[in-house]
Amino acid sequence: MDCIFCKIIAGQIPSHKVYEDDQVLAFLDINPVNHGHTLVIPKSHVGDIEEATGEQLSSLALAIKKVGRSIKEGLGVEGYNVTENNGSVAGQIIPHLHFHVIPRQAGDGLKLWPPRGNYQGTEAEDILQKIKIN
Amino acid sequence: MDCIFCKIIAGQIPSHKVYEDDQVLAFLDINPVNHGHTLVIPKSHVGDIEEATGEQLSSLALAIKKVGRSIKEGLGVEGYNVTENNGSVAGQIIPHLHFHVIPRQAGDGLKLWPPRGNYQGTEAEDILQKIKIN
Repeated sequence: MDCIFCKIIAGQIPSHKVYEDDQVLAFLDINPVNHGHTLVIPKSHVGDIEEATGEQLSSLALAIKKVGRSIKEGLGVEGYNVTENNGSVAGQIIPHLHFHVIPRQAGDGLKLWPPRGNYQGTEAEDILQKIKIN
Repeated sequence: MDCIFCKIIAGQIPSHKVYEDDQVLAFLDINPVNHGHTLVIPKSHVGDIEEATGEQLSSLALAIKKVGRSIKEGLGVEGYNVTENNGSVAGQIIPHLHFHVIPRQAGDGLKLWPPRGNYQGTEAEDILQKIKIN
């Protein structure tokens, strides 16, 4: 398995570990958007959310909550973003599921994507017919 | 409770429901970044990840996985972003925990935040001392 995150988990590549349990590892992103930017990953290799089991997703969510609280308390910031990119078209570079936890401060210059392409006529209904889960 | 998402859950405000179970509701964002942009929320009011229980986070994660798959299959897109904003400084507007699932297509013009402020000297170690969870 030539996966850089699996090598980090195995200790073959060093990392700054923020949190670890049986299922999950969290470590500092070496290319941070803001200092303290942490990656939370499952220890078993899965490519993305769709390959993850419910147990993995549950353990990841709990770890994200712990890391988020620690970032707020430890760095004295008021909030953070949690992001996960599924597929290269969405900006996923490492094909091992990872959640970003990004500390935020007022005036840090980061902006969320703006709304665009509001629904006209029956567009929302048309979309819903395609994706609704019954 | 003057929460717009609680009113959507209660049916007092209409929505385009993508998915629903005992714990979770998913519906189209009325101000989509891309068409099909869906919000996944817990039915019980919690402000953010830190207020959510493990059971809520687990059910949200499973619902996100379902919605993501449905978006890919239904809209024929190759990927999606999952984002969650904790705190107004992070861009959270509605104080009811919600995860965005945003369909992505090549050439849609959306860009992730670039890395910046790489760690120099002992900066990464200094951060780690502040946020490491033992």
